[in-house]
Amino acid sequence: MFVTFEGVEGSGKSTQIGLVRQWLASLGREALVTRQPGGCALGLELRRILLDARNTHLDSTAELFMYLADRAQHVAEVIRPALDAGRDVLCDRYHDSTVAYQGFGRGLDVERLVALGRMATGGLAPHATILLDLPPETGLTRARGRNQAVGASQSEGRFEALELDFHQRVREGFLELARREPGRFAVVHAAGSPEDVFARVRAALEAHLS
Amino acid sequence: MFVTFEGVEGSGKSTQIGLVRQWLASLGREALVTRQPGGCALGLELRRILLDARNTHLDSTAELFMYLADRAQHVAEVIRPALDAGRDVLCDRYHDSTVAYQGFGRGLDVERLVALGRMATGGLAPHATILLDLPPETGLTRARGRNQAVGASQSEGRFEALELDFHQRVREGFLELARREPGRFAVVHAAGSPEDVFARVRAALEAHLS
Repeated sequence: MFVTFEGVEGSGKSTQIGLVRQWLASLGREALVTRQPGGCALGLELRRILLDARNTHLDSTAELFMYLADRAQHVAEVIRPALDAGRDVLCDRYHDSTVAYQGFGRGLDVERLVALGRMATGGLAPHATILLDLPPETGLTRARGRNQAVGASQSEGRFEALELDFHQRVREGFLELARREPGRFAVVHAAGSPEDVFARVRAALEAHLS
Repeated sequence: MFVTFEGVEGSGKSTQIGLVRQWLASLGREALVTRQPGGCALGLELRRILLDARNTHLDSTAELFMYLADRAQHVAEVIRPALDAGRDVLCDRYHDSTVAYQGFGRGLDVERLVALGRMATGGLAPHATILLDLPPETGLTRARGRNQAVGASQSEGRFEALELDFHQRVREGFLELARREPGRFAVVHAAGSPEDVFARVRAALEAHLS
C-alpha cells in the first residue's frame, strides 16, 4: 500500500510516519519511508534550492516546476519500483502539498495544478492519505522551535517565515481536498501527545485499508 | 526586441548571437545576451544537473519540469526586466527547444508542451526566432569537436550522446514549428562560414523587423 502524510508545518508528519513504520514492522511489514521534496538524489539537490531561506526571489511558477520535477523523478526512481516489489511506501508529502501550498496558498490555478500532478506522477495516486490537521499557529510554534533547536532556522525556514494567513489558506486547502476525495483522505486531529495522535492515525488506517 | 536562436547542437547559435550583438552595437544598441538553460543563478544550478552526462537516469518528465523551472525564473528575473528597460534581448534557446527536444525528440505530447510553455513564460513570445537549420550529422560533428577541444565531453555531452535519429526528429520538429508560425520564425541555412551565415541572419532580421 502507498500512504502519504500531509499537513501544515509542525503537524507531526515525521513523528507519525515513524510510529506507523514501527507498527507495520511489528506486523512483519518493512515499509519504505521517503519524502517529497528530497526523496531521491535529484530531489535532494532541488530540495536544497527550494527550502533555502535565501531564495526569496524564487518565481512562484519556477518553484512549482521544481516541485513537479522532484515528484516525477521520485515516483519513477523510488516509489513505483518499491510498490512493484510489493513493499509498503510511506511518503512525507505528495502532490496534495503542491495543490495546497502553491494553489490555495499562493493562488495558482488549483485545477491546473491537479492536472499537472497527474502528469508528474504518471497518474499514481496514494491508496490512503493521512491529513494531520492542526491550527497553523500551533504547528508553526512547533516548527520554529524545532528549527532553532537544530540550527536550521536560516537554511530551511523559507515556508515557516511566511505569514500566518498563508498557512491558514494552506490548511483550508488541505481540508477542501479531503472533502473532494473522502475515499482517499483520512483527516486526523493532530493536537495532543504523539501517542494520542498515533492512536487516531492507526484507527484511520485500519478503517481505511480494511 | 526579443530575439531567440534555435537549432540542433553545433548549428552555430553562439557564434551568430555574438555577431548579431556586434552588429547591434555598431548601431548603438547594447543587447543583453543570455541563454536557456542557465541564464540566471537558479538556471545555472539546474543546467549543471541537466547537462551532466552522468544523469542518464533522469526521468523525461522530471527533465521537462526542470527546463520549465529554469525558463520561468529566467523570464521573471532576466528577460522581462531587460525588455521593460528598453533593451534588446538575444537568447540562446527558448521554449521552442523544449517542444523540439522533449516533444518531437522524446515523444512527449507536443500540444501539452506548447501550453506548458505559455505557463512558464507567462505568455512572453519572441518578436523573432532565428532557426539555424543544418543536417544534424554536420552539427554533431561540430559539437563533438568543440566539446573535446574544451574538455567538456564528459560534463556537457548528454544530448550529443543521443543517437542521430533523435537529432533528426528534433530538426524536423523545429522546421514544423517554423511552418506553424512563419511570422515569428526565420529559417536560416546554417552551413558555410560564420560570415556567410551571418549575412543570411542579418538579412532575415532586417526583413523580419522592418
